[in-house]
Amino acid sequence: MSGAPPGGSAAGAAPFILGLDIGGTKLAAGVAGEDGRVLSREVIPARTEEGPEAMIARLVELGRRVLAASGVSPAAIAATGISCGGPLDIRDGIVREPTNLPGWIDIPLVSRLTDDFADVLERKPVYLENDANAAAMAEHRYGAGRGVRNLVYLTISTGIGGGVIVSDRVVEGESGNAAEIGHMSLCHDGWACPCGSRGCLEAFASGTNIARRARERLAGGQPSSLSALSPEAVTAREVAAAARAGDPLACAVWDETVAVLGAGVGSIINLFNPRLVILGGGVTAVGDQLIEPVRRIALERAFSSMAAEADVVIAELGTDIGIVGAVAAAQARLAEQA
Amino acid sequence: MSGAPPGGSAAGAAPFILGLDIGGTKLAAGVAGEDGRVLSREVIPARTEEGPEAMIARLVELGRRVLAASGVSPAAIAATGISCGGPLDIRDGIVREPTNLPGWIDIPLVSRLTDDFADVLERKPVYLENDANAAAMAEHRYGAGRGVRNLVYLTISTGIGGGVIVSDRVVEGESGNAAEIGHMSLCHDGWACPCGSRGCLEAFASGTNIARRARERLAGGQPSSLSALSPEAVTAREVAAAARAGDPLACAVWDETVAVLGAGVGSIINLFNPRLVILGGGVTAVGDQLIEPVRRIALERAFSSMAAEADVVIAELGTDIGIVGAVAAAQARLAEQA
Repeated sequence: MSGAPPGGSAAGAAPFILGLDIGGTKLAAGVAGEDGRVLSREVIPARTEEGPEAMIARLVELGRRVLAASGVSPAAIAATGISCGGPLDIRDGIVREPTNLPGWIDIPLVSRLTDDFADVLERKPVYLENDANAAAMAEHRYGAGRGVRNLVYLTISTGIGGGVIVSDRVVEGESGNAAEIGHMSLCHDGWACPCGSRGCLEAFASGTNIARRARERLAGGQPSSLSALSPEAVTAREVAAAARAGDPLACAVWDETVAVLGAGVGSIINLFNPRLVILGGGVTAVGDQLIEPVRRIALERAFSSMAAEADVVIAELGTDIGIVGAVAAAQARLAEQA
Repeated sequence: MSGAPPGGSAAGAAPFILGLDIGGTKLAAGVAGEDGRVLSREVIPARTEEGPEAMIARLVELGRRVLAASGVSPAAIAATGISCGGPLDIRDGIVREPTNLPGWIDIPLVSRLTDDFADVLERKPVYLENDANAAAMAEHRYGAGRGVRNLVYLTISTGIGGGVIVSDRVVEGESGNAAEIGHMSLCHDGWACPCGSRGCLEAFASGTNIARRARERLAGGQPSSLSALSPEAVTAREVAAAARAGDPLACAVWDETVAVLGAGVGSIINLFNPRLVILGGGVTAVGDQLIEPVRRIALERAFSSMAAEADVVIAELGTDIGIVGAVAAAQARLAEQA
């Protein structure tokens, strides 16, 4: 229908979404409209040690609070979206066993939350989405990827995750777990990854692993300004800062990091022929120090015809990306079913 | 419409496709119906040294001959499909500069063939598709991937190419060149690839490169039953045969090959969460000697949740895959536009 608002619902129909974001560090909830603008939000510590039951109970309370704070009538909420670490089964709405959520094993989260919100949301649909896929959908709909049909989103933080948009739709795969870009091997017989494979991008270039590699060099006795810090204080941010200041150890770690990330992004361009590769996550806070060499190396390594069509940029959505991702995922699923 | 034949056209409408396959070694043409059965086919040497003009002229003659031999009235031909090596621009119908077709630079093949067949086919649509994507579409529609929504097709022959089907549609990317799986890096700082990158799957595990690696070991003086052959006679097939007979040099080359292929397929499973990875191309003629170790290594290296949903199998379509791929690509494009 011409003139209908975006998001798949007809003009006048319930246009708001409750977005829930379940992470290993924090739980977040928010209410957003069809323009992706977050009307109310709240973030609380995840406290994963309490296990799924207590966490779900706190998440439901959080959802109720942001719903009340938004001023939106529950009748105007079309659906609830949940962004959660994988592996999941998004079709059946089951959280399989995310590495960042100990004790969450085969939790039927969608039916659980449908029940728990039944009094206010009248069993309106609840959709579960892999957190990185949800973030990709958020950047595609509301961020750096607006108007782009084919993009790859890569989040570089504690771990490395990703989401792929092909012809304006997220690539789900058989059960919604596609785009585990952190676990493509860039070194088939190289460094071990806790996932059981070798040479995984995440096990080298995530924030945690940038710091680990710097600590290993320090422990090996290489001189560095970072040796003034306690081992725990050596973070990816500190490594980046020391590299900017010209510290040789930090420069070596950083150069290796962008080399491997650049090779990975180059492969991603050859695999997906995207218009954009969008880098998000905490490690991208350093900006040009990361994006410039990764872009240069990736575009050099990709096929020239595909490199000419592609660019590598920083994500636009900030700390709200979890909530906006959950919202975008629910909007996409509603549109699919319209 | 219930009861309509597959392929996107209504019952009674023109249900046949002229399929053309342009390779570096041979040109092929065939006519197929909506069930993918090839009614007539002909294959001639490509003779790429003659350049695009002469090749296109011979391809048009070939198309006319298979059309006549098929017994199908030109009025019953709905479209022409072309399978060709990339890079291409499939939307504009332009062959950019395939590595296997010297001298083919920015050839507007779709408009060219629309004109050249105008007298018999009345300017009915002509569709261009990347050869590996076309083969993936053929296996999805008529081969090992029938009924599977998410699959990855990998062809291992002179080079390594691929095609990805997500939710029953081929992943094209911005210009139809996605799924260059042969150019994902499995060794970010490793072996050089003619494409300019390093560690590319193709530059290690294609038929040509299996043979090259064996020849390099022979030249280095390692004893082997293969040293009885002239260097040119050392092919991937001979390496596989010698490995089956227990030759240590050939076994080492073969073990490295399946290790790298297994790592690559494992990454592919993590990236696409497919139901099937289908291996085709000349090197797969050895059957279990290739597929068994590649399956085992790939499923070991992939995330267990995704490995549990995936299998690695051999392609079903044989030497007709180029023609059937061109046909399947045209059928998909017709259905898109219906």
